[in-house]
Amino acid sequence: MNRKTFLYTIYLFLSVLPTVSLFSQSKTEADIDARFIRQIHDVALTEGRCHPWLHHLTKKIGARLAGSPQAAAAVEYTFQMLDTLGLDSVWLQPCTVPHWVRGEREVVRIAQSDMGTVELHALALGNSVGTGDGGISAEVVRALSIDELEKMGEAKIKGKIVFFDRPFDATKINTFEAYGGAVDQRGSGASEAAKYGAVGVLVRSMASGLNDVPHTGGLQYKDGLPKIPACAISTNDAELLGQLLKKSPVKVFMRTNCELLAERPSFNVIGEIRGSEHPEEIIVVGGHLDSWDVGEGAHDDGAGCVQSMDVLQVFKRLNYKPKHTIRCVLFMNEENGLRGGTAYGDEAKRKGEKHMAAIESDRGGFTPRGFTVDGETDVFAEKFPLMQPWLTVLEPYGLHIKKGGGGADISPLKKQGVLLIGFEPDSQRYFDYHHTTADIFEAVNKRELELGTAAITSLIFLMDKYGL
Amino acid sequence: MNRKTFLYTIYLFLSVLPTVSLFSQSKTEADIDARFIRQIHDVALTEGRCHPWLHHLTKKIGARLAGSPQAAAAVEYTFQMLDTLGLDSVWLQPCTVPHWVRGEREVVRIAQSDMGTVELHALALGNSVGTGDGGISAEVVRALSIDELEKMGEAKIKGKIVFFDRPFDATKINTFEAYGGAVDQRGSGASEAAKYGAVGVLVRSMASGLNDVPHTGGLQYKDGLPKIPACAISTNDAELLGQLLKKSPVKVFMRTNCELLAERPSFNVIGEIRGSEHPEEIIVVGGHLDSWDVGEGAHDDGAGCVQSMDVLQVFKRLNYKPKHTIRCVLFMNEENGLRGGTAYGDEAKRKGEKHMAAIESDRGGFTPRGFTVDGETDVFAEKFPLMQPWLTVLEPYGLHIKKGGGGADISPLKKQGVLLIGFEPDSQRYFDYHHTTADIFEAVNKRELELGTAAITSLIFLMDKYGL
Repeated sequence: MNRKTFLYTIYLFLSVLPTVSLFSQSKTEADIDARFIRQIHDVALTEGRCHPWLHHLTKKIGARLAGSPQAAAAVEYTFQMLDTLGLDSVWLQPCTVPHWVRGEREVVRIAQSDMGTVELHALALGNSVGTGDGGISAEVVRALSIDELEKMGEAKIKGKIVFFDRPFDATKINTFEAYGGAVDQRGSGASEAAKYGAVGVLVRSMASGLNDVPHTGGLQYKDGLPKIPACAISTNDAELLGQLLKKSPVKVFMRTNCELLAERPSFNVIGEIRGSEHPEEIIVVGGHLDSWDVGEGAHDDGAGCVQSMDVLQVFKRLNYKPKHTIRCVLFMNEENGLRGGTAYGDEAKRKGEKHMAAIESDRGGFTPRGFTVDGETDVFAEKFPLMQPWLTVLEPYGLHIKKGGGGADISPLKKQGVLLIGFEPDSQRYFDYHHTTADIFEAVNKRELELGTAAITSLIFLMDKYGL
Repeated sequence: MNRKTFLYTIYLFLSVLPTVSLFSQSKTEADIDARFIRQIHDVALTEGRCHPWLHHLTKKIGARLAGSPQAAAAVEYTFQMLDTLGLDSVWLQPCTVPHWVRGEREVVRIAQSDMGTVELHALALGNSVGTGDGGISAEVVRALSIDELEKMGEAKIKGKIVFFDRPFDATKINTFEAYGGAVDQRGSGASEAAKYGAVGVLVRSMASGLNDVPHTGGLQYKDGLPKIPACAISTNDAELLGQLLKKSPVKVFMRTNCELLAERPSFNVIGEIRGSEHPEEIIVVGGHLDSWDVGEGAHDDGAGCVQSMDVLQVFKRLNYKPKHTIRCVLFMNEENGLRGGTAYGDEAKRKGEKHMAAIESDRGGFTPRGFTVDGETDVFAEKFPLMQPWLTVLEPYGLHIKKGGGGADISPLKKQGVLLIGFEPDSQRYFDYHHTTADIFEAVNKRELELGTAAITSLIFLMDKYGL
């Protein structure tokens, strides 16, 4: 061992010190915990109910956009299911949701190019206005970023359809990072293009790979700017359009009939097991019950809902009596308004409820990799270290605990000092399905889904036992 | 901190000591390694060729059972592809392989039961004899294990078809453990049942879940016992048969036309980059080129082959000059004979070749979780600890290094003192596809496959740099 190596060894030694000294489980307790977490996995993998529940939610009900009859059916179904579990309370929490409808199937067509006419695989973006029955027809200008629009200016953009074509960065190991690096085009592209007089927007789908499947998703219009229609096109079609534009001008025709109707009443669905020692202190676990209006909302986020419900089912089956209140919340309208999450946060604040932590599962029903933790600086600094000792019993299941995002629905709780935890499954396949017709029941693997239930239940058990 | 906790803390401290003191990368070296491993991932994820190679192997060539024209085509194709990479040598290593053919589609039919006649989803087991054109018809007796046969004895078994129905243990987190706990029924069931006079065998498919897809796979007949025909039936059909047998006797008709033809010549395909400092010391990376004769052999083991080839491609593209020889070996006939692996081991021994380690990828093209390491006791004890410091640069990619199996093809090298390493991807979906018609190109996710290439390349880089 040379001197450099020796110094590095010392450095490593010091770097593990804090973790070790924070360890608060005794050997015996760790054994007890390991045994209970083993039992949680046994039950989740053999008596879990998340998979049949997901089947009903996807195959019998289907896509569940806020305000739709399917969303209402999902509220009713999950309420009934929670009500079969012998919980202490099951209730509906009202919220008012936007009601956007897609209307007739969208047409996006290359109307004039070297290839002649080509139909593109397209989906209007959620919240988008429609083009009207006559559609719009305009030349296309390609941009790789919103910044690029400023350089192009009104001269190049006015009267045109802006085509945002920045792809996912394939070198990001976690696909959510790639998504984060591209999604501004979908969310803000329409208003940014409207600033310079664009008449419509096409966005390359938010997808990991190349195929014919378009991905919808929400856009937000900025106040004071014209609302112009926007569609996502498949990544293959984006490639094609990009190629054609290199050679000569391309004119596109687009027709969409989407519209925003009057707001409607809807609900979060909530069920809880009351704590035996600290009933006033709540651990929330949830996902969102709404989905986009294509596919079946299986990974996004039927999976998170049925896992959250199954956490309670597994605890009941194990006859576990939590010290703290464990509350499953199925949030409404995450996709295009976050009204459910907002309503939950507002009511928690109004009632002065005390939440130990809130866990969200909204990254698909894939094999668990761990959890990411978020919170206000002081909350995070205080609580994150307390979770590290739990790795001893979680790592055998391949689970980590890292700094990172919580989840959209639970985000309003952050300012109230609540620790937010995002369940993190393997991310590789998520953006093959996200917001598409491919997000169906068959895309979810039963064991992967159940392992997610087990992972979340295990973490909640540790939180309940040791507190945070 | 109480006394117990304090003692446990000390214990933990001591338990990390060996790892830390073995750390041989300096801080700067670890940074350099991290940067190169980042480059490896960038190239694998953006310029990898494993995915198009897999497309050809599965869609243009297809299932590649040893002795088949497709196996020969796969030898030719992969030789040509390796030959495009600018390697130092590419060659074929001869071996002789068994040539088993399935013949006409098998018929397995419940001929007499409370439900009347029911066709079952079945596949003859590899190496099985056929029933002959007339088929066989006999009453079924169910057994959950080979041990159970002894208790049942000749009185209950003679003249019957034995139905082995022990399912996978769903509580095993790693599905290969569940497979290991069930596969004796498929491998040895026929001969064990023949001991007691059975005329045929049905085996519940080696599968994680319930569906209609039968899984084939090899059986081994024991010398001196009658060879009786054996088929796998789907897990759904196994459930049905089990239910029917609870109520009343069930008679099954089975007809298979499989047979073992004369042995044929075949080859391992090998390509290597010669080491610049220690060309005589070899790091092998490989998978097996043959597959079962159903599906397209995509996960098993087209994935392992194209990843192993891509390791060399990535090194070449990065202009990496290894100190040691890095050799890609595509083994022939892993599925029903291991003749390629045996031939490779024999020649290595005869030539007195020195192998630093052999890595096999034969657990599917799923998201990497790490590596499992095996070897003779002294070899393992010496080399395994040397790998631990590498976790610093591998863990950011979610990769572990654990004790565990290497791989079938490289197993003959173990006695020669070679360290064996098995690439370990996520195991949850493997036994949905393994040995079935569902193991096709579309079942492999491009990014998951490429990340496997990157993980294996990263480990080989570390082995080459630091030695073992």
